[in-house]
Amino acid sequence: MAADAPIAALAEQVVARCRELATVSEEPGRLTRPYASPAMARANALVGGWMTEAGLAARVDAAGNLVGRRGGTDLHAGTLLLGSHLDTVRDAGAFDGPLGVLTAIAALQRLRDEGRTLPYAVDVLGFADEEGLRFGTAYLGSRAVAGTWDPALLALTDEAGISLRDALASFGAMPGSVAAASRAGEPLLGYLEVHMEQGPVLEELGAPVGIVSAIAGATRAHVRFTGRAGHAGTVPMALRHDAACAAAELVLAVEATARGVDGLVATVGRLEALPGAPNVVPGGAVASIDVRHADDDVRAAAVADLRATAQEIAAARGVQLSWEVRLDNPAVAVDPGLTQHLAVAAQAAIGAPAPRLPSGAGHDGVALSALCGVAMLFVRCAGGLSHHPDESVAAADVVVALEVLDGVLTALAQEPAWT
Amino acid sequence: MAADAPIAALAEQVVARCRELATVSEEPGRLTRPYASPAMARANALVGGWMTEAGLAARVDAAGNLVGRRGGTDLHAGTLLLGSHLDTVRDAGAFDGPLGVLTAIAALQRLRDEGRTLPYAVDVLGFADEEGLRFGTAYLGSRAVAGTWDPALLALTDEAGISLRDALASFGAMPGSVAAASRAGEPLLGYLEVHMEQGPVLEELGAPVGIVSAIAGATRAHVRFTGRAGHAGTVPMALRHDAACAAAELVLAVEATARGVDGLVATVGRLEALPGAPNVVPGGAVASIDVRHADDDVRAAAVADLRATAQEIAAARGVQLSWEVRLDNPAVAVDPGLTQHLAVAAQAAIGAPAPRLPSGAGHDGVALSALCGVAMLFVRCAGGLSHHPDESVAAADVVVALEVLDGVLTALAQEPAWT
Repeated sequence: MAADAPIAALAEQVVARCRELATVSEEPGRLTRPYASPAMARANALVGGWMTEAGLAARVDAAGNLVGRRGGTDLHAGTLLLGSHLDTVRDAGAFDGPLGVLTAIAALQRLRDEGRTLPYAVDVLGFADEEGLRFGTAYLGSRAVAGTWDPALLALTDEAGISLRDALASFGAMPGSVAAASRAGEPLLGYLEVHMEQGPVLEELGAPVGIVSAIAGATRAHVRFTGRAGHAGTVPMALRHDAACAAAELVLAVEATARGVDGLVATVGRLEALPGAPNVVPGGAVASIDVRHADDDVRAAAVADLRATAQEIAAARGVQLSWEVRLDNPAVAVDPGLTQHLAVAAQAAIGAPAPRLPSGAGHDGVALSALCGVAMLFVRCAGGLSHHPDESVAAADVVVALEVLDGVLTALAQEPAWT
Repeated sequence: MAADAPIAALAEQVVARCRELATVSEEPGRLTRPYASPAMARANALVGGWMTEAGLAARVDAAGNLVGRRGGTDLHAGTLLLGSHLDTVRDAGAFDGPLGVLTAIAALQRLRDEGRTLPYAVDVLGFADEEGLRFGTAYLGSRAVAGTWDPALLALTDEAGISLRDALASFGAMPGSVAAASRAGEPLLGYLEVHMEQGPVLEELGAPVGIVSAIAGATRAHVRFTGRAGHAGTVPMALRHDAACAAAELVLAVEATARGVDGLVATVGRLEALPGAPNVVPGGAVASIDVRHADDDVRAAAVADLRATAQEIAAARGVQLSWEVRLDNPAVAVDPGLTQHLAVAAQAAIGAPAPRLPSGAGHDGVALSALCGVAMLFVRCAGGLSHHPDESVAAADVVVALEVLDGVLTALAQEPAWT
């Protein structure tokens, strides 16, 4: 028990730091930390200070990502990447992103406190844009690190009309040199991320952590039905072409389709009848459809089914259908070797095999998979809640995550050096 | 034919003025004129000017209604009320409401042009809120005139959180003195309204005008389902409490219920998932339900069925239901005497009995029936279309409406004075 006390204190510190970091926001009274914002600069300064305390050499790269480096004892052993993101959604919780950065820092703090060395170097990355809140395009930070950043992205504008180029310049990053943030071509051992689950599965299973088996692919479509508006009191039911009724049928078809396929999730998150007046038969209706599965073929088949169903609904009701695919991301496989290290370390930490589960949410690993092998450890969260100020992670579960990280760091040190 | 030429010109002017008034809107590119809005103030100024041209003394009452008065030759002969409403739905057409106000003004313009007098006074009313777009409660203008305005209504708020009290004060009306708009206790001959049919019946029968036999009763409810928001990628289907799916079920139940009962119409005109982001399982959903039938018992039974269905849906999905009745208007009988005058004048104008039909739409007469006898003349519209920018009324049919109004005005002048 005495040996665990420092780890428990470190875990408490991780949770306390997540809470402290959650006060660094662009909006009073709630956490909103967009890419390249003044709040993000303050967050980088705060977390950079914690990196320095843990013995890391901290800097901000050309894309605005925070990078904290720990040197290894073998100059030829390569670098392991750890981390997560420091940006948030609007009205966010304290743990989505920061948990992974602060857990990584704590794991390295522990090595330093215990006087342990590793042959390979470790970089802790605090990605600057995973959520895509400000510019509507996710993974801007991790794409720069992966070397897949497209300079055309600099022309993106936020809601205030500020270009990404100007935002980065104001932020003190280097819009003309984002390519310099790329780690492509370096000897890398892989990317390992700790992240809160953002779902209820681990809580249901009673497991503090889980091993990510794959990052699900996602399709997002914007659907619009166009019928015929009319007066709610005077158009007989038989003569209506009600677009909201068509949308309602599709909402239930989306739900039924997902319920019928193992591991499939499908959501109508946006749904609106138009014009939206109580006494007008809706002439229009818009809906978003989000479909995710770890197997791209399963996802593609579900999307095709739903599109055909929407066409049938439209034809039967005499309304028009528009179906626009706005996002189509393939599933990302995790690195088998890193994931096996995670599994072994997790079993040692909790005394039983940790659950394996796909990640339904996207993560920086999606972008980093173009650079190196990726693996992810999920930490249980309360009530499956995320993207919400009430999201919560228990310090006792962070203890387990720290033990697992430590196990992986140790196991990698015993492998042959990167060649 | 020569005698008809001035009437034809008046009818053309009515149509042209409806079109001109349709450019007075809160929204660029489409007609949306809510209660107590800046656009409504501009509409009152424009129509007030036309009233003045027709020899009427124009003013805005304490509730924001436009009132144009023509004096009579007999101080004891009472007042006949004519008119309709000047507010609109969102993305409205040019004729729903304004047609009745402008036809009434034109009928009095004709009397003035021809130098004819009437023993009784005539007030043309341009009601400020018939559609209920802004505060979700209809007839706020006519209820004030009828003396049935409830001061508690002043606490209603619009989507921007502005109270009706503040909206009226900003508008230059008198929220503390709305009771002063009441005409209760005055000697009134009745309320006579010309309105476009808003349905396909007259067009099918080939009749330019029709006599309203009754106004259907209407119930309007505001429904809210509250489930549990979550991440669209991480919450398995079986663990969801999706409020939008609950709302979708209710939309289809509303449609099925109305299809199953002769003469019943029921509509979900407003439907919105909350928070409304594509990657968030909806934690909330709001819907409006509008139910109408000429038989109050049939309507009440349908509403009770739908409420029970909504409760079942909520229970089955583990979501909360809020069901708030915002409007519950019984069917309204028309005044037999005024309606008989309409029938005689219509037969004279078109050479055959005019069709009689119930009104599926509510009208200001619903509220005014608490004050005096009401009667309505419907004018044929193209394709049964209303609450739509393409709604259209032919000038030739307005000629007939002007002839009928003139016939009624003349007939009432020959009756014993109001006592």
